[in-house]
Amino acid sequence: MKCTRCRGAAEVQLRAHNSAFCRPCYLLFFRRQVERAIASENMFTKEERLLIAVSGGKDSLALWDVLVDLGYDTTGLYLGLGIGAYSSRSHDKAAAFAAARGLALRVVELAEEGPGMAVPAVAGLTRRPACSACGTMKRHYFDQVAHDEGFDVLLTGHNLDDEAARLMGNVLRWQRDHLARQRPVLPPSHPKFVRKVKPLFLCSEYETAVYAFMRGIDYIVEECPNAAGASQLVYKDTLNRLEAASPGTKQAFVKEFLRTGQPAFASTEAREAPRECTGCGMPSYGELCAFCSMMRAVQARAASRAAASDRAAPA
Amino acid sequence: MKCTRCRGAAEVQLRAHNSAFCRPCYLLFFRRQVERAIASENMFTKEERLLIAVSGGKDSLALWDVLVDLGYDTTGLYLGLGIGAYSSRSHDKAAAFAAARGLALRVVELAEEGPGMAVPAVAGLTRRPACSACGTMKRHYFDQVAHDEGFDVLLTGHNLDDEAARLMGNVLRWQRDHLARQRPVLPPSHPKFVRKVKPLFLCSEYETAVYAFMRGIDYIVEECPNAAGASQLVYKDTLNRLEAASPGTKQAFVKEFLRTGQPAFASTEAREAPRECTGCGMPSYGELCAFCSMMRAVQARAASRAAASDRAAPA
Repeated sequence: MKCTRCRGAAEVQLRAHNSAFCRPCYLLFFRRQVERAIASENMFTKEERLLIAVSGGKDSLALWDVLVDLGYDTTGLYLGLGIGAYSSRSHDKAAAFAAARGLALRVVELAEEGPGMAVPAVAGLTRRPACSACGTMKRHYFDQVAHDEGFDVLLTGHNLDDEAARLMGNVLRWQRDHLARQRPVLPPSHPKFVRKVKPLFLCSEYETAVYAFMRGIDYIVEECPNAAGASQLVYKDTLNRLEAASPGTKQAFVKEFLRTGQPAFASTEAREAPRECTGCGMPSYGELCAFCSMMRAVQARAASRAAASDRAAPA
Repeated sequence: MKCTRCRGAAEVQLRAHNSAFCRPCYLLFFRRQVERAIASENMFTKEERLLIAVSGGKDSLALWDVLVDLGYDTTGLYLGLGIGAYSSRSHDKAAAFAAARGLALRVVELAEEGPGMAVPAVAGLTRRPACSACGTMKRHYFDQVAHDEGFDVLLTGHNLDDEAARLMGNVLRWQRDHLARQRPVLPPSHPKFVRKVKPLFLCSEYETAVYAFMRGIDYIVEECPNAAGASQLVYKDTLNRLEAASPGTKQAFVKEFLRTGQPAFASTEAREAPRECTGCGMPSYGELCAFCSMMRAVQARAASRAAASDRAAPA
């Protein structure tokens, strides 16, 4: 198998692109895919300050690596979710990546933000699924750090497989409001929000893993223990089967959605602008934002538990 | 496991409906599903003459069985595709079903319509995929018989799995024009067309097979040999995995599409009415309809082959 670009010996074959590449040409190809996504979607410029949410996984670290290489002004944000050994290992990977390259990494540890703030505690106290509690925490801290520290853009490492799986879930239930908003660039709907972008939205999980491997990036390979059985994984498996039967399916599904599918949904009602949460001051559609409502529930539940254990204690 | 309806011993469990049924209650349940589809979509009335396209498979025979039971005025139409032993066995099944019940079955054998008219011959001469040639033949003869013999409605046995697989294919490529027209009732776009309906569109393949089995319907079990590797089968497999992970997925996918998804696409341009084909007189968007164009290609190719073999013959 020969490299499509230089005709040398190829190391990786990409059926979806009907191509094969040697290592140097693959790295160039991957970088160009990211550059092209940034340019074609007008994601950000070299003058803007970028905050990259890094989990210690291959996607966010590969994204950070490419952006540093391309000369962007980047800072990492690691949010410690408190999910046992998984979280401590992912923190180690993110911190080692930043330290080895002299990059700025901002760290927020939920467990240090207050009692009962780690994801397992929040999920337990509120009886919400862990992934739902986690999503609310991430959105809040990502938005808050980006706003408080004056960043222009918030970047996440969502890849093609993530986007295709999310699209599949939205389509299987025909969630028009979700379909209307699933884009690689989300403009801010309030002055306290920053633009949110996904520069890897057309790079598959496999392509990102190959890039991380070739670049010697040491990332956390294990999935979050809470993800087991999540419907996203079923959708990914489904899409991998469709991709195997017809290479290019995932990319066409997401690209054609953005080009011809989504305009049909986007025409529906413009959503009103959010006001500000009376708890934290961040944008919210209700009086309290989702994060503050969840925190109230955590505090109420923790207080009632404490009262119950006081009553149970001998006088 | 108890019957959800009568609390007797259940024979079949339907996870998508969170139900289980004994044999008599299942037959009632299935019939009611069909009745409800007919009523809710205003498919047809007892006063109309129904032409049912029957292939000898479980879906079309189960549909015919239910409709006879419900007292509709039905006639079967069997189109002999000329696909070897598969076609002769499917003809036998359809004919035996009709004969045993004293039902009218109209038979059209493509091989008797003219030279080179059977599906394998058409596909070979025109170099089209067999399924594409077959689809064009079916559409033409179904439409023509329905019109020429004064039927009000043309019915096909497409089931939920067929509709969900078709929807998946249309969604993966975001084919807006196909999405705009995928409905269980297609009103005629020309006076020579009749209404086309799919009364089993919410009955799964499994449910239809159980009905056919319980009713002792002898149907052709084998798939058409040309279907192997067809993308429809990949989509069906995919949807079966999603259904296993979350029962009810297929039904929700199709129902929610019709309720909330499709209106987004239907709003696009109204298609102009077809004119009449200069070849056969049936409605067509071009000067020649797809069937007549294909027939011209068959004749031209057959003529050039004959000329070539004349030249090759000794003088």
